[in-house]
Order: sequence, then C-alpha cells, then structure tokens
Amino acid sequence: MKDFFTVTSLERVFDLLPQFPLVETEPLPIEAAQGRILAGEIRAEEDIPGFARSTMDGYAVRAASTFGASEANPAYLTLSGMVAMGESPRTPPLPLGHAMRISTGGMLPPGADSVVMLEYAAEIDATTLEIAKSVAPGTHVILKGEDVEKGRTVLLPGIKLRPQEIGLLAGLGIREVSVYRQPVVAILSTGDEIVPINAVPGPAEVRDMNSYSIGSQILEAGAVPLKMGIVRDNFEALRQTCQTALERSDMVILSGGSSVGMRDLTIEVLESLADSQILVHGIPISPGKPTILAKAGEKPIWGLPGHVTSAMVVFHRVVRPFIARISGMAPAAIFMERRICAKISRNIASAQGRTDFVRVRLKDEGDALWAEPILGKSGLIHTMVQADGLVEIDMNTEGLNKGAEVSVILL
Amino acid sequence: MKDFFTVTSLERVFDLLPQFPLVETEPLPIEAAQGRILAGEIRAEEDIPGFARSTMDGYAVRAASTFGASEANPAYLTLSGMVAMGESPRTPPLPLGHAMRISTGGMLPPGADSVVMLEYAAEIDATTLEIAKSVAPGTHVILKGEDVEKGRTVLLPGIKLRPQEIGLLAGLGIREVSVYRQPVVAILSTGDEIVPINAVPGPAEVRDMNSYSIGSQILEAGAVPLKMGIVRDNFEALRQTCQTALERSDMVILSGGSSVGMRDLTIEVLESLADSQILVHGIPISPGKPTILAKAGEKPIWGLPGHVTSAMVVFHRVVRPFIARISGMAPAAIFMERRICAKISRNIASAQGRTDFVRVRLKDEGDALWAEPILGKSGLIHTMVQADGLVEIDMNTEGLNKGAEVSVILL
Repeated sequence: MKDFFTVTSLERVFDLLPQFPLVETEPLPIEAAQGRILAGEIRAEEDIPGFARSTMDGYAVRAASTFGASEANPAYLTLSGMVAMGESPRTPPLPLGHAMRISTGGMLPPGADSVVMLEYAAEIDATTLEIAKSVAPGTHVILKGEDVEKGRTVLLPGIKLRPQEIGLLAGLGIREVSVYRQPVVAILSTGDEIVPINAVPGPAEVRDMNSYSIGSQILEAGAVPLKMGIVRDNFEALRQTCQTALERSDMVILSGGSSVGMRDLTIEVLESLADSQILVHGIPISPGKPTILAKAGEKPIWGLPGHVTSAMVVFHRVVRPFIARISGMAPAAIFMERRICAKISRNIASAQGRTDFVRVRLKDEGDALWAEPILGKSGLIHTMVQADGLVEIDMNTEGLNKGAEVSVILL
Repeated sequence: MKDFFTVTSLERVFDLLPQFPLVETEPLPIEAAQGRILAGEIRAEEDIPGFARSTMDGYAVRAASTFGASEANPAYLTLSGMVAMGESPRTPPLPLGHAMRISTGGMLPPGADSVVMLEYAAEIDATTLEIAKSVAPGTHVILKGEDVEKGRTVLLPGIKLRPQEIGLLAGLGIREVSVYRQPVVAILSTGDEIVPINAVPGPAEVRDMNSYSIGSQILEAGAVPLKMGIVRDNFEALRQTCQTALERSDMVILSGGSSVGMRDLTIEVLESLADSQILVHGIPISPGKPTILAKAGEKPIWGLPGHVTSAMVVFHRVVRPFIARISGMAPAAIFMERRICAKISRNIASAQGRTDFVRVRLKDEGDALWAEPILGKSGLIHTMVQADGLVEIDMNTEGLNKGAEVSVILL
C-alpha cells in the first residue's frame, strides 16, 4: 500500500497544461460556430463599411456650407435631390452650399463630408433648405473602413466565438471558419456499490450520479461526453475500460474510488497503461484532495473523488481548464473566469495550507449581494443544488469574517 | 408621418412579460435536458442515500465503545470482520466493544452509528483493534435520507437544469423529465441596402450582419433561431414575411429600419397584422431608443434598431428576458443575471432620464478589475468584438467618475 501523498499545488497542476496537445481543427459554417474556439487568425479582406454612411436621417452636406449657422442665423442651402438607400449617388461632387436628403445607412454623395440631422433642418421649398446648426466634417458619418479596415487582423486564434464575432464574420462575407473540434471526454464510474440509474439499488447500493453530473459538466465545458458506464473494483476490468476509453476519446475521467484501496487500484491501473505517467497524486484543496492526474500517451486521465459534490468542484476548478486547453483556447482566455463580488454572510473557518471551496447561495438584500455558505458534507448532492456558486478561500487565508468581500465562481 | 415618440421605461416594458404565454412542454431524457427549463415539480420517491454510509475509510462502531479513548488511553475493541462495498452486512447488531472494517461509501452494519478513521485505529492482531480517539454518534456517516428525504419536493418548475440537477435526477432514478421546448425565434433583416452574406455588396450596400449576430444571440438565449432572410423596404413584402414568420415561430424579431421612414413602415406593417397591438414604441435607453414591441395574437414581435451594436445591446437587455419568459423560466430567475464588480477607468458622461449602456473591456490590474469604456459609434461591430461587457448607467445617474464601482453585464 502506498500511503505517501505528495500533493501538488493548484498552480503547479496548471503548469502541466502545455503538456497536452490540442485537438484537430474542422471547418464549420459560421452559424454553427457559436461558442467554438477559432483555430486561425481572421484578416479583413475588405473594409466595413465599404463606403461612407450616414448614421442619421438628415441632409448630406459639405460641413463648410454650415459653418456659422445657428437658430438665430440659419444657413440656406440648395437642395439637390435625395440619396436612395442601397444606391450609389451618381452625382457630380456636391458643391459648397448644396445638400442632399439622406436616410440612416445611406451612402454619402461624392463631395459631402457630414450630415445635418433632420431636426436642425427645414425644407423651405422644393430646392431650399434652412439649416439651424453648424456641423464639423465627419458629423453623423461612419467612414469607409471605420469599423473594420481592409488588411487588418480582426480575430486571433484561440478566442471563443460569441454572437458579435459571428456578426463580424458575416459582415466580412466569411461563411465558413476553421475551429477546433469539440474534444470527446470519456467518463466512467467505478465502485462495487454503484448501479445504473435505471436499476433499483439494493440495500447497500447507490445509483450512478457522477456519470450524469460530470457528463453534464463536460457538455457545459463545450466538450462531448462519452459515457463508459460503471466498472467494478477490479484491476483487469478497470484497465480494459480505460484502454477502450483512451482509444475513443481525448480525455478520460474516472470517478469514484474515494477509499484508499480504490485509489491504489486506480493508480495501479493508470501505471499499467502504455506510455503512462502519474503527474499529480493529491491536490491541497477541499473538497477534492485525492484527485489524480495521469498522462497516457499524450492524453490526460483523471481520477476524481467519488463524492458527487467533490467531483463536481474538482471538475469545475481543475479539470475544466484542461478541457479548455485541448479545445484550443488561448492561455490568457482559459483563466478569464469572471467572478461575482459578494459579502460572506457568516464567519467561515478554513485551514491554512489548503484551498477551500465553500458552496454558497447568493442573496440580494438591498444594496449588497450576500454569499450564504451552505453547510453539508461533500457527499451530498443537495448542497450543490442549493448552491449558486463557490467561494474560494486560498491557502494563505485562515478563514473569513462575516461581511468580508468574497468573489464567487458561479456554478 | 408619426413624429411622436412616447417612450416606455424599461421597468414598464418588463411589466409586459406576463402578457406572453409559455411554450409547450416536452419529455426529454435527463442527459439531453442540460440547460433546459424544468416544467414540473420533482418529488423524491426514495431516500438518498437509501442507507447509512461511511464517508471515510475506517471502522464502524457504536460511538459509546470509543468514549474516553485517546492516544494516551486507547480503547481496545473486538474486530468482527469487514463490510464489503455494495453489500448489506448480514450480521446481528454490532455489540458494544466491537468494530467492523469499512470503506468510504460502505453501508454501516446494524447497531453501528459512527466511523473511526483509519488514522486513529491500529489492528493489533486479527481480532483486536486499538482506537486512539473517541467519536460522537454520527461521525463520518451520511444517514439514510440525509441528502434527499423521500417525499420531499426537490426541484421546482421554472428552474434551469444545471449539472447538479441532472445528477440529482440520476440519483433518484428519474431518467426522463418534462421540460419546456425551446422557443423558435424568427429573425428578419430589413433594408434596401442589405445583401446576403454570400453576395458581394455593391458600392452602397452592406452585408446582413444582424441575422447572424442576433441569430447567434438567440441560440445563446436557449432558443432556436429561424432565419427569414432579408426583406425589402416594402409594405407588402414585409407584411407577408412577418405573417409567415408568425406562423412558424414563437417570437419574431425585425432588425433594421433605423430611419424614420423605415420605422414608420415597420409600425404600419405591425398594425396591419391580425389581432395586433403596438405595446412599446421607444425605450429611454442608449443605444436602442427606437425599439418597438408589438403583440400579434399572443406572440411578441420586436422591431430592433438596424445598427448592429444597438440591436445586440437591446437583445441582451430587453429581448432576452422575454425569451426566458416564454421558455418557462420562473420570474425570479429571469432577472438573476449576476454582474461582475469592477471600477470604471475614466469619467463617463451620461444623460439623465435615459439608461446608458457603455461597452467595456475588463482589465485585471493587480487587486482591482477595471472596466475600460470602449468608445465608438453604435453602428460599429468592432466595439462589440473588443467588449467583455456592458456597464449600465441608470437614468437617475448623471455620469460616473473615474474609479467608481460599476457592475458589468458580461457579453
């Protein structure tokens, strides 16, 4: 029996990220690429917009024609027609002292450099426009290329494509992009006491929650869960299933085995796999200390605790960045998880030398958002169901006093 | 021409939410229900766990057998076998002074009420156990029903199913749940200057970004986008497409028509639809003031501004709660959007009587997270691509001073 437990700090665990290669890329139509990680850089092959556009309803002018105009002392311009939407005004350059009616989004006629809003103009007769305000060149105009300039790099690889990036690609006429494919993450539950969810558990048995809660977390992380089912506490069975899982996936997660015997069995199995190496055996976090990370070939294999809540917390804080890594996400983006500020609603004790994750419920009370710790053992799923998030108490903090500002990781 | 513009405050707009009925429900296997809205309440038909379980590796005892035990003065118990995982110990009640070896997750033998951790016990010989610590009843034990009690309501309708709820359902042996179906939201772009993204725009034309950026936002909101394409600025064409869209969807979004003429056309078309009513014509927000909300039959129809950024902001802050509403989300959950705390990096002016949404980039600088305003006209997609979020400056605030605490809505 190996009793030693040389823990690896969370920072050191994340130092291992570059050891794992990225999945391949695939082309996707932009409407299917929402939420996917961009694989190549995108350059603008054209300007957006391709022409100077009005941003208001009004009159296109040379700004100089309006200089000095005011309500008390309006300028009078010659109205020489209107710009139709979507059409290029085929007119000679607009002379000084002239104006053309234009709608929002219309193309500025040649010679015009600005737009006077409808509100500051009055058509006196069919050819005379009164202007009660002077405008500077560029007023109410988006210039050609002002949004996106031709030749510029507009998107970098490794970013997650949000609706605005999809919109930008559409604007550039790019209908297909190269993105990383979604990694397949295999999940298997171990334990002689675990039965499938469609079975009626015997008196000492429990249903396989982890395949579902973790499977669901895998989905949420942008990967594809591959359920390998339940494996008995048996070297050959576990080894065989791990090998099959490795062949079919990009990452393998074993859950269960919180007992020392089961942990030892897991380690033995992981060590027996071809080209394998145990990288992490224990992390100073609570819950989640007995977490194992190994590498078989170039693929990560995790041993997560069996307690459903511990497994979920470890997945959220430790496994997810590795999924993001192999998904092609840029290193800076992996840890961009934004946290909510709140105040802790009661004193919380915490051991030094260990990072604690406290499940909390958020309560809006007037001006402050309070994070209310949810008490309960880490084997209890209901504590996660009640939780809105996790408060992380770092290893150098000895606990929190009521009212202390905390940042909450949303669950 | 209708120049009047009777704006409706954001609060009053949200008062209209209950006017729109929810979509129907559908049964789904739990592994497909991630992120969906639960339609019925879930009651536990059994206890979780179904038996008292050990949460540690150690020895099951009656606590009274350990009272007074310490390192200096250990207790000696009779070791009477071990509990196998997944098996119900078919033993007579454990007598005082006896112990059974047990692993994490194992079922407590009858009579036992607590577990002594491995670390505080030593097997002296095959039948003698030395115990160096006393335990209280219940120590290292999860009681039958302690996680979920049979008969209790565990999930309420209207919640979004997260991984922990999926895990709980699995634990209860519930393989299928009733959820609301995903609403279909039709999107159509209007404007004579708009061309499909696969076309090369003429000199005064632009590509249809909004169908893609808003289509992508619809997906992100948990609904199914239905692209109706581009419609000319023509009453009959717009009316016909609106009618088709209403027949095929649960909500219709028109984007474009930022010019007064186009807005008037949109209003005329909406008024011409069967059983229609204009509910909102203008909201005091920037960007997004010209937003229109109508009702045709029981379905909402939106007229969003044509500027890509304005349309996205209005979708995010105004349209999304309506999608959540018809998706079945509980009223309390609709506005549970959590915001990130940051400090604004420069002074920002804002008009009173209007809610301003300022696009910001987040920058972590040591201890503080700064929200850096992104300047640029609301027609520019690149400002949204650079943005991490929006800062909302409410209508009673006259602007923000550098360093002021702000809450950021993530984009």
